[in-house]
Amino acid sequence: MNNRRKFIGTAAALAAGTLAATAMPITAMENKYPVVHHVFFWLKNPESKEDRDKLIAGIKALKKIETVKDIHVGVVASTEKRDVVDTSWSVSELILFSDVKGQAVYQDHPLHLEFIKNCSPLWEKVVVYDAIDA
Amino acid sequence: MNNRRKFIGTAAALAAGTLAATAMPITAMENKYPVVHHVFFWLKNPESKEDRDKLIAGIKALKKIETVKDIHVGVVASTEKRDVVDTSWSVSELILFSDVKGQAVYQDHPLHLEFIKNCSPLWEKVVVYDAIDA
Repeated sequence: MNNRRKFIGTAAALAAGTLAATAMPITAMENKYPVVHHVFFWLKNPESKEDRDKLIAGIKALKKIETVKDIHVGVVASTEKRDVVDTSWSVSELILFSDVKGQAVYQDHPLHLEFIKNCSPLWEKVVVYDAIDA
Repeated sequence: MNNRRKFIGTAAALAAGTLAATAMPITAMENKYPVVHHVFFWLKNPESKEDRDKLIAGIKALKKIETVKDIHVGVVASTEKRDVVDTSWSVSELILFSDVKGQAVYQDHPLHLEFIKNCSPLWEKVVVYDAIDA
């Protein structure tokens, strides 16, 4: 390889290196469970602690579904009030899956169907966000 | 302790045990990072892969903030289309914190302010959900 070719080769490697460096954090931050399923529930009776606790218990039981890798059952956190923050919901369900197939298994699972049957009378609105790691 | 008292004591313990059993999953499933901060971004140019990738890279850099314990940067997952699933957003940012204070530190952190300055021209709408484990 003559010097010119060597230089071009190095320049190309450097350019590729720059691209790789930009992409690096993607690899470095890869999560084990890249599918994020986040559901927000608005209760029919948002003042009812009983309804809220019944829904929370119902969601927690979903942990038993084998494709559910991690679960957070939440209520509105007391963070700073800002216009962009939606605090109108009552209960949230955050579940992590290994893949989209795991999410599909969860959707059709008897425990999930039982949860919907038992708990859906409690809520008046549901919004779901399904994300996958970029 | 006579037998009657012993029985009452046992019955009370059983009753308490029942309550404890109901509450158990709360303890058993406690997460290390109970504060969930989930942001959904709607891009001004949702067709621009360049804008999307710039926003994704910007969010990934927020990992460096010391109170950020876990981060998922997402795009819409190809799950089953259902009425309740919102797929209108472009990029999501899910961050876990140890506590509400950690979230406040993040909000005011120079890296977060820099991210807002650099990336806010890219989005036309943001919705934030701040949850804490129930």
